[in-house]
Amino acid sequence: MSAVAIGLDVGGHGINGVVVDPAGAVLDRAYVPLHGVSERRIEAVEEHIAGLVGRLWGTAAGPLPVGAGIPGFHDQTTGLLRQSPNFPGWEDVPVAARLSKLLGRPVVTENDANVALLGEVWVGAAAGLTDVAMLTLGTGVGSGFLVGGRLLTGARGAGAEGGHIPLHPGGRVCGCGRRGCLEAYVSGPGLTRTAREEFDRDPAGLRPERPEDVFDADQASRPWAQRAIARFVQDLAGGLVPLVHLFSPAAIVIGGGVAGAFSRFAGLVEEELVRRAIPACLEGALPLRPAALGADAGAVGAAWLALSADRRTAPPSRLAGV
Amino acid sequence: MSAVAIGLDVGGHGINGVVVDPAGAVLDRAYVPLHGVSERRIEAVEEHIAGLVGRLWGTAAGPLPVGAGIPGFHDQTTGLLRQSPNFPGWEDVPVAARLSKLLGRPVVTENDANVALLGEVWVGAAAGLTDVAMLTLGTGVGSGFLVGGRLLTGARGAGAEGGHIPLHPGGRVCGCGRRGCLEAYVSGPGLTRTAREEFDRDPAGLRPERPEDVFDADQASRPWAQRAIARFVQDLAGGLVPLVHLFSPAAIVIGGGVAGAFSRFAGLVEEELVRRAIPACLEGALPLRPAALGADAGAVGAAWLALSADRRTAPPSRLAGV
Repeated sequence: MSAVAIGLDVGGHGINGVVVDPAGAVLDRAYVPLHGVSERRIEAVEEHIAGLVGRLWGTAAGPLPVGAGIPGFHDQTTGLLRQSPNFPGWEDVPVAARLSKLLGRPVVTENDANVALLGEVWVGAAAGLTDVAMLTLGTGVGSGFLVGGRLLTGARGAGAEGGHIPLHPGGRVCGCGRRGCLEAYVSGPGLTRTAREEFDRDPAGLRPERPEDVFDADQASRPWAQRAIARFVQDLAGGLVPLVHLFSPAAIVIGGGVAGAFSRFAGLVEEELVRRAIPACLEGALPLRPAALGADAGAVGAAWLALSADRRTAPPSRLAGV
Repeated sequence: MSAVAIGLDVGGHGINGVVVDPAGAVLDRAYVPLHGVSERRIEAVEEHIAGLVGRLWGTAAGPLPVGAGIPGFHDQTTGLLRQSPNFPGWEDVPVAARLSKLLGRPVVTENDANVALLGEVWVGAAAGLTDVAMLTLGTGVGSGFLVGGRLLTGARGAGAEGGHIPLHPGGRVCGCGRRGCLEAYVSGPGLTRTAREEFDRDPAGLRPERPEDVFDADQASRPWAQRAIARFVQDLAGGLVPLVHLFSPAAIVIGGGVAGAFSRFAGLVEEELVRRAIPACLEGALPLRPAALGADAGAVGAAWLALSADRRTAPPSRLAGV
């Protein structure tokens, strides 16, 4: 099939770009790493985007429509990216307008977790569903929600901040400046912190530096790691309960780096959800689904955005094409 | 204008019915109280509905379409009312099919809080908006959400259970059997219980029996009542924060019996929200809006349902008519 759109996932560590066909299959890709703060300035990112898109247009034999997922609060009423945790200094930036001018054709932009959800609904773990909740567990915790086939954005575009649901009142300080948010517990750094608390209580082996260390120590039956995973499971289930009660989704997709160890904790989280959630709200939502597109979810979803006349409407299914 | 639809709000204490014109104005109404458990059996309720609708059809000079709001989990995929907290014994009841047969014409049904939201969006506090969150504080806590102009129902119809967002982990037992739900704190009985805890610590005057007693004692500057209201404000704000972060609505409507004292606590809850919520998510949602239709919200919203071909689409505004 022929190339129809380009999707970009603009993250703090790098920019992932894909060329997709009408069925959402990735025909070509390119990646540019961003090193350090100076490369995250908007001018530097734009230069990288221009180069990356030019390259993909070259292999696609022509300028295709472009969509971009970018972390932060997008105000769809003004077209401004209000603020981005990963890109300090990007404040009230008319990012879609700037990219459109840069590339010489319309570019649509959306929150990165929202486009990752669209990717998973188009050709991933939730293909063809209309009511889906997704959490991405990585450096932070992102979320996206499909409600009756439409992307939840909030009145102005700043909704779907599931990472900042209050979990432990008065608890850990979160990256957002508030206390006790889900993100402070089930992100990669959150899990590592929980594991260090347990390690310091009863040290054995090496002090954990990353989530992988925790999963490895758990596999080696270190008690501190087992206690940390148990707390992580409780916290993740605790964050999912309000989502289940509010959205009663047909699927819950778990993505992000921490979800690489999905098979290790999924069953425990499911048991906890069955114990804590209203059965009618949970019905049909289990088992939890690991994200299927991995690091491409955001870029593929952004390509869908570029093809979609109505930005809030999700792809009906992988079979519908365009 | 002429009568176009009948809406019913079937509650544990009684059935409210209205006849509306194309602009959502109430032309006529009728109310039947339900006394005791025996009158809440489905056969008894159906008998009352038949009488009430017959009477309203009489004044409207003909059989009009009928919509009904009924508390409980409605499974839209099967047409079954799965369970209703207010109507014990109504389990897996094909309620829309039964009412349609009873009245000899199609009847649409929906959760009572959801139709109350539709009423407020049609001709009430949130007229013409597309992204709205509503909480009803009464015997229980109900909620409804409009997302991009569509009613949030969840994949099967059991979503929007905002009353059962976990607020205080391990806290009070809720009517749903779980612990620490928002409903256990900011419903009428929840507020009364909080006030009794504070009263028992430091009794003065009469021990509170109802929310009104708490508001009266607060007006009389009783310290226990002031402390209870302060806790109620904290709890209500705590329940609204996740809704703000997820839905980022253009309006938050507060209804139900407890909201009768809205002006007494609204400003305090707003201050707390400003302190606790992510500014971008909260933008445009304040001030909080008291429900405008009072006890008619559910019945008016149910009448909209009867007129709407697409049950999930909310009325665009009071001016659009039908």
